Parts: sequence; C-alpha cells; structure tokens
Amino acid sequence: MPDDKIVTAAVLVIGDEILSGRTKDRNIGTIATHLTSIGIQLREVRVVPDVEAEIVTALNALRRRYSYVFTTGGIGPTHDDITADSVAAAFDVPIAVDPRAKAQLATYYNARKLELTPARLRMARVPTGAELIENKVSGAPGFVIGNVVVMAGVPDIMQAMLETVTPLLVTGAPLQSITIEIDQPESEIAAVFGAHQRRYPDITMGSYPLLRHGQPASDLVLRGIDPERLKLAELELRAALRLPK
Amino acid sequence: MPDDKIVTAAVLVIGDEILSGRTKDRNIGTIATHLTSIGIQLREVRVVPDVEAEIVTALNALRRRYSYVFTTGGIGPTHDDITADSVAAAFDVPIAVDPRAKAQLATYYNARKLELTPARLRMARVPTGAELIENKVSGAPGFVIGNVVVMAGVPDIMQAMLETVTPLLVTGAPLQSITIEIDQPESEIAAVFGAHQRRYPDITMGSYPLLRHGQPASDLVLRGIDPERLKLAELELRAALRLPK
Repeated sequence: MPDDKIVTAAVLVIGDEILSGRTKDRNIGTIATHLTSIGIQLREVRVVPDVEAEIVTALNALRRRYSYVFTTGGIGPTHDDITADSVAAAFDVPIAVDPRAKAQLATYYNARKLELTPARLRMARVPTGAELIENKVSGAPGFVIGNVVVMAGVPDIMQAMLETVTPLLVTGAPLQSITIEIDQPESEIAAVFGAHQRRYPDITMGSYPLLRHGQPASDLVLRGIDPERLKLAELELRAALRLPK
Repeated sequence: MPDDKIVTAAVLVIGDEILSGRTKDRNIGTIATHLTSIGIQLREVRVVPDVEAEIVTALNALRRRYSYVFTTGGIGPTHDDITADSVAAAFDVPIAVDPRAKAQLATYYNARKLELTPARLRMARVPTGAELIENKVSGAPGFVIGNVVVMAGVPDIMQAMLETVTPLLVTGAPLQSITIEIDQPESEIAAVFGAHQRRYPDITMGSYPLLRHGQPASDLVLRGIDPERLKLAELELRAALRLPK
C-alpha cells in the first residue's frame, strides 16, 4: 500500500448509558488519538441507543462510507447487549455460537472454576464470517467482520482489543501536526491565520481558544501528511505573526 | 404541554480537534446529564469535522428527526469556525452581522478597552431569524434557530449557554432511574434480568459491568417515566435476585 493512501474511519458508540449521561464516554478520545497516530483519519462519530434498527441504520451508513468502523459497547451477556445480533442484521448474515469463541470462554471460566452457563455462552455468539479479537481481560471476544471492528465498551477492555486488532489494519500516511502556542486571543490573529490557510490548502489549520496563565490565549494547529510542507507552513506562519522560529 | 409528552434531542459536535483526538470532548456527557434531568431524551450524538457539507447533512438529518438539536463548537472568529454559515446553509436562510450580537460584542470589548475588529465582528454573524443566547463568559453569543441550539465548544462557555437556554425549552416527563448495585458479574443475573425486562416492557433495563472492591460486579439500571411502575419493577427485581428491599 502506498504511503500516501488516505484510510478513513468512523466510531459507533452503542449504549443508552452514554445517551442518558450515566456513563461518560472515554473511548472516543482514546480511539481518535490512536487512529491518528497510526495513519487512519477518524472522520465521524455516532452514538446510538441499544435499539437494533438504530444500530443497523448507523452501521450500514458508516461502513459504506469509511475504510473502517469501530464500534464500542453492547457485547456482554445481558438482554440489552444486542450489538452482535445488530451487526449480523446489518451484514444480513446468520449469527450463532462460534466454536472458537466458545473455546476461549470455556478456557477463561474453567481457569476460574466457573461454569459456562447459557448467559455466558451468549457472549460466544458471533456473526458468520467474523474473525475473533481475543479479550485478555475478561474472556468474551470482540470480532471483525468486513470493515467493522466490534469491541467492548469497558474502556480497559476496549483498549486491549484496539491494540490486538491494530496489526491487522491497513493504515495510511499518518497525519502530522504542529501546535503553535500564542499568548493572544484568536480574534487578534484571525486575519493573518485565515490568509495563511488560503496559501496552504493542503494543510488543515485550526485555532483553539484557551486560558493560559489566566489570560485569553490560542493554540494554532497545523495538520498535514507531508512533514516538509508542514514545517514550511509553520515557519511562514511564525514569521507572519512575528513569533520566534 | 402534558407531562407525559416525549421530547427528544440530538447533539452535534463540530470539530476536527475532537476527531483528531487532540481535544477530548467533555460536552456530550454534560449535555446528556442535563437533558435527562430536565425531561428531554437524548437519542443520538454525532461528531463531524469542520466541513460545511458534513455539518449541513448531519444537521438536516438530526433536526428533522428530533425535537431539538444542540450543536457545540465552531462559533469563534477564525476561518475554521464555520458553524454559523453551515447552519444558515442548512436552513437555507441568509447570514449577516446581527445588530443585537454586534451590540453585545461592542459592550464586551469596550469594557476591556479592546477594538471591535473585523475578526471579532465575524462572531456577530448569525443566520436570519435566529434568537441570540447571551455569552456571559466571553462575549460572542450562541443562537437558537428553529429547533437548533448553537453553542460554543469551550466547556465552561457551553455550560453557561446551556443554562441560559434551558428555560426556553419545551420539556417532557423526566426519565427517572433506579440503580441496583450487585456484587455479581452480569452473566450470573442475565437470565433473571432478561425475564424481568420482558415482564416490564415500559421500563428500560440495562446492566453495566464494573469492578467493585476488585471483584466483578454489576449495576442494574431501571429507567422509566412513571415512578410507581419503576418502584414496583425495582422491588420485584430485588425479590427475584434475593436482594434486601
């Protein structure tokens, strides 16, 4: 795969508990940072409730549009865990207990002298054609089907699965970024910054307001896949803003 | 408005910085908790980049489907702040400097002995027909147009705007919730819990795994708008799980 290929992704967070505010999502930020670091551009995120029709509609819209879709949540043993069934419905394939997943769960529960009950066995149900993502934390695997990566919602387990699946992903040129911290509010540099963006259409430039030492300040962020162009854009912007190089 | 009316909402987060992972979103959780507390059901969240076509498509999909859409981000003075223009495009209305917004900005900057430069004046551009949301923190107002509430992305400013706009919102019956903390993993209560959900289709029941004192445990959450039904469902579930009342 050539280095300049653009690989894109969406995240689909599945869970009533995020929409009710009961649980604060921590997975979006983790996945976003990770994908950026490995050269996959996260382009969209959706959060949907534990309702099959909603999951199917969102998943089908996203998987057709982006190179990958990463889902989190809804792969546990209880009745509200409907992600595997919804993914099977979206792909229009059957779902059944997967012997490999069953073996992983059996190993996990045997080691803890626990029985593989029907509720636990439910976590071995996987859409036909999926490859498993081993779960080193709590036994029940995630899976990959087509361009969709299905992961747990518990942040520690999600992170472990994301690391496990990473070597299997096609990645593109990593988006590099340079941050210029300035001690002025955005409004004082907006004209120069906007003109600079027009000169560098291949570099994405964003400005983020913040308080630094209690005073309005800004972070100017330049992003691009060509490090030399990025450095050039940075130096010219520093000169235009009369900042040290 | 009758108390049992269902009022729904979506959140649209606008910002490359969330998708790149540079900034971790804190607004989704804040808005989710707030809406739940005032009787508005958050049904969907989307995060999109600073690209007008993406914002317009997402906004039009969401505003037609839910009672309200709350947007965050992209209302600052720099070239990458394109929310107001995108909202005007979605509603197909003109956008221009709003005299009321200009007056608010003039008051804010005059008090700080700063000039109302063209960059700052850009923050007074508002789609025709919008009502302003005063920004007590940093001057530049948010606005409401149709069923869309446009707010800043900086969490402190977003929260202040959300509080300002709350009295203007139509709200429904607040969703009440009861959490039962149990010291068992989900898989051990899944059968009883699933059967209980089938007996109470009007109560939404979710199970969330966690570690308590280092051991696998679960929070069982029951949600509904009728407090008496909710209490009944809780008592029966406690009995079925042989828990104290």
